[in-house]
Amino acid sequence: MRKTKPIRSDIAWSTPDRITVRGKDMASEILGHMNLGDMAFLQLTGKGPTPEQSRVFNAMLITLVEHGITPSAIVARMTYAGAPESLQAAVAAGLCGLGTVFVGSTEGAARMLYEAVQAAADTSDLERVASATVDAFRARKEIVPGIGHPYHKPVDPRAPRLFEIAAENGMAGRYTTLMSLIARQAEAKSGKPLPVNATGAIGAICCEFGFPWKVVRGFGVMARAIGLVGHILEESQQPMAMEILWRTEEEAARHLRPTSASADGVTS
Amino acid sequence: MRKTKPIRSDIAWSTPDRITVRGKDMASEILGHMNLGDMAFLQLTGKGPTPEQSRVFNAMLITLVEHGITPSAIVARMTYAGAPESLQAAVAAGLCGLGTVFVGSTEGAARMLYEAVQAAADTSDLERVASATVDAFRARKEIVPGIGHPYHKPVDPRAPRLFEIAAENGMAGRYTTLMSLIARQAEAKSGKPLPVNATGAIGAICCEFGFPWKVVRGFGVMARAIGLVGHILEESQQPMAMEILWRTEEEAARHLRPTSASADGVTS
Amino acid sequence: MRKTKPIRSDIAWSTPDRITVRGKDMASEILGHMNLGDMAFLQLTGKGPTPEQSRVFNAMLITLVEHGITPSAIVARMTYAGAPESLQAAVAAGLCGLGTVFVGSTEGAARMLYEAVQAAADTSDLERVASATVDAFRARKEIVPGIGHPYHKPVDPRAPRLFEIAAENGMAGRYTTLMSLIARQAEAKSGKPLPVNATGAIGAICCEFGFPWKVVRGFGVMARAIGLVGHILEESQQPMAMEILWRTEEEAARHLRPTSASADGVTS
Amino acid sequence: MRKTKPIRSDIAWSTPDRITVRGKDMASEILGHMNLGDMAFLQLTGKGPTPEQSRVFNAMLITLVEHGITPSAIVARMTYAGAPESLQAAVAAGLCGLGTVFVGSTEGAARMLYEAVQAAADTSDLERVASATVDAFRARKEIVPGIGHPYHKPVDPRAPRLFEIAAENGMAGRYTTLMSLIARQAEAKSGKPLPVNATGAIGAICCEFGFPWKVVRGFGVMARAIGLVGHILEESQQPMAMEILWRTEEEAARHLRPTSASADGVTS
Repeated sequence: MRKTKPIRSDIAWSTPDRITVRGKDMASEILGHMNLGDMAFLQLTGKGPTPEQSRVFNAMLITLVEHGITPSAIVARMTYAGAPESLQAAVAAGLCGLGTVFVGSTEGAARMLYEAVQAAADTSDLERVASATVDAFRARKEIVPGIGHPYHKPVDPRAPRLFEIAAENGMAGRYTTLMSLIARQAEAKSGKPLPVNATGAIGAICCEFGFPWKVVRGFGVMARAIGLVGHILEESQQPMAMEILWRTEEEAARHLRPTSASADGVTS
Repeated sequence: MRKTKPIRSDIAWSTPDRITVRGKDMASEILGHMNLGDMAFLQLTGKGPTPEQSRVFNAMLITLVEHGITPSAIVARMTYAGAPESLQAAVAAGLCGLGTVFVGSTEGAARMLYEAVQAAADTSDLERVASATVDAFRARKEIVPGIGHPYHKPVDPRAPRLFEIAAENGMAGRYTTLMSLIARQAEAKSGKPLPVNATGAIGAICCEFGFPWKVVRGFGVMARAIGLVGHILEESQQPMAMEILWRTEEEAARHLRPTSASADGVTS
Repeated sequence: MRKTKPIRSDIAWSTPDRITVRGKDMASEILGHMNLGDMAFLQLTGKGPTPEQSRVFNAMLITLVEHGITPSAIVARMTYAGAPESLQAAVAAGLCGLGTVFVGSTEGAARMLYEAVQAAADTSDLERVASATVDAFRARKEIVPGIGHPYHKPVDPRAPRLFEIAAENGMAGRYTTLMSLIARQAEAKSGKPLPVNATGAIGAICCEFGFPWKVVRGFGVMARAIGLVGHILEESQQPMAMEILWRTEEEAARHLRPTSASADGVTS
Repeated sequence: MRKTKPIRSDIAWSTPDRITVRGKDMASEILGHMNLGDMAFLQLTGKGPTPEQSRVFNAMLITLVEHGITPSAIVARMTYAGAPESLQAAVAAGLCGLGTVFVGSTEGAARMLYEAVQAAADTSDLERVASATVDAFRARKEIVPGIGHPYHKPVDPRAPRLFEIAAENGMAGRYTTLMSLIARQAEAKSGKPLPVNATGAIGAICCEFGFPWKVVRGFGVMARAIGLVGHILEESQQPMAMEILWRTEEEAARHLRPTSASADGVTS
């Protein structure tokens, strides 16, 4: 017979007259005293942020809220068009695609930085750690995460600003330095401009906070949930989902029936 | 032949050296100047909040982040147990159930308040509007949304605190007043204690902001996404999902095979 | 103290050497003896289908598997593009939009037929029931579900074929008759061609089976899950998701920056 | 300026009077002529199955429909409890967890078999290929996928039945043989009983069909969608979701407040 294990959660509990989250009283210690980013910090770490941590953590999350017309925005809008009574499912659908391709480089940058420092015999020489890290990625023919950007050239404007905010709040450290050095080494070894991008900056800042790299993806998920509600609200007022659908099926229909002169109609 | 319609979004755009969200430059006007709740406000309304709006809006969202062991928390944890490589899908699964049963009363309260004011011949007499509203719900044998709580008795501690924050910031108005009056009328007509609960307070505050009631559910969705990342992080360190599963299937197995003396095993 | 309720499921159970679903032994009574549609019937009704039920039920489900380029297909493909390691989440995202707009009319047709028969004083005169039903929809200015099609004109070829299969297998009855009569009445009263479409035929057949209208949507969901795996497989070999994304964001960018001569780039 | 690429899909198309899927006319060639498993085969491969393929493919999918009380069943039921108006989102949530932990071994078995054959210098000696494969897994301290079962002992009854059906239909071949040899080698090398389980049998049969291993997970997803609709229907009639929730939060509350004598109930 299987031995039953206890079920417990240390995040929150309630009595009839109190709700406590991470040891803080919701009514008297949280509401009116914290902003939403601070609450996220409390929820994840069990502690309220210092003012410096609050500024850096809020900036990091804000960076991930909105990226314009992304796959997740289109997915949320199309899902909402089919099930407007289930706004929550439209956000959920939009989040499902935040996997290795689009948010992977944030996670990948954090993982690279942690592993580089752990593997290093001597972490006082970060220049050498950076060089070895870039060499290892190049030897495996893998892309170094967190550097370069196909559109934001020569510099992704979010990255230096995030590093500036980290520095102003005493949160620039070995990981932000190492990320910058890795970018410089990659530029030298490849001969291409490859500055730190937003995902590299965020990955490095996550390391400064000490967040496990496996949860880094969660920051993109929570921030993007906010952005997607904005896209759904706009879709309800100024829709694009059905127009995208119609254009797509019209073109797909043309390719399938090239000889049909009257093929101006549409599937459904 | 169908006439093509333009596709446009007014939320964000980019040039190689700038990212602009709702008309504000990400690097110089948003990062370091706003908190995450403010960014959500900007994303949804197109404008940054005033300091007063910022305090009320952040408090409202924070209230919805964490409610302990909820269905959505269990769902996210169980999904993560099966697909730990897809943290985003675990959050998505948890959000899918934020429908009419659990977050419906926030939406329902906002809708009730808007419709009560629109239907009223004379909105100067809110006491009468409240009485008519309660009568109409009672005549339809529907539950008045936003009042009473099965556990937080006599008072849901979040509601008076949210109203206090609204009042301190000049955002108490006809909707917060009407919500309180509706609760009082419902208590008088039913003879039961039915104070405004957290969802009633949030619904009323959404009306003060002027948010369409159809987007009110979105606030619960974005806030809960934050809470779920916290539960997933805890599940990765102190799991409960498989224990819940095993207990459930053990009990279900006992009901199906009552005569089997050796039925101590489990399906899978 | 809350009284614990039992947890039980009557769908399936296992012993070390047997798996039983709905009372049938998986190895000796199900595998090799049933097709997938029959298994779906067993899972939902607790009984294996008769040969006639098997033919009709399989045909009904098959109709819903594939509809070309639909919102759910685009959503599944875009989600897969972002998270190719989570095929299951791509299918899930595609299913999230099967709500009131696109699969609603199947559910709506079944509900209409059940309610029309329940409300009728005399169900021997189905012509009169049909007339009253259409009048009621017209009075409420609601669209009669299950009739007409914007593209498949004059007749949706799936509907007469499904009715033919039902008739050949002794499953045409009062509901399929009523559906046809409703279409004829709607045509007479509106002066427009409004033959029964695929969703009307499916709704009527669901009523002949006696399925509750609330589960009718589930047939579309299970069938479309099959179709979406097909689209994801094609996306992995012949992708369209990123091309749709790029075109959409390019056009959205043009609308936002009409004066910028060099605006040929795009965000990501 | 980016060069536009064509958008096309070869799965299905329509004209006003015809719907064609994979080159077959829906009304005259598919409906009434195929079962749901055959349609899935057509959708994925572009060809209708032979009678032999039909029997094996249907059996394989049926095996994956229902596994009793699984995490995905609980997730679907809990999501439905919160959003009963969105049945599709409840199925979607249940599918999200079909990741590496629970359906991974089917995919893993198929991949192992393909890679073992590709890597083998001489595929005529499958015994040697099996031995080398098991050695490689043991050297990497990885679990060999597709063999052994914690509950179905000594034999998972689905596996020999699936292999029997494959053999009866001329679809037993090098991959089913290799899977059996791998199980025997693993038993010999480990000294433990490790017969082929259902996921090993399915993985091997997928290889006999020639399906890419990356789509193998899709068979579990489409089959389980059917099973989940069955669980949701039962939940609507004989619920368990809220009972699971209440028990879980009651226990979690006890662990958090061990000294509170009156802590006998909790909500949220």
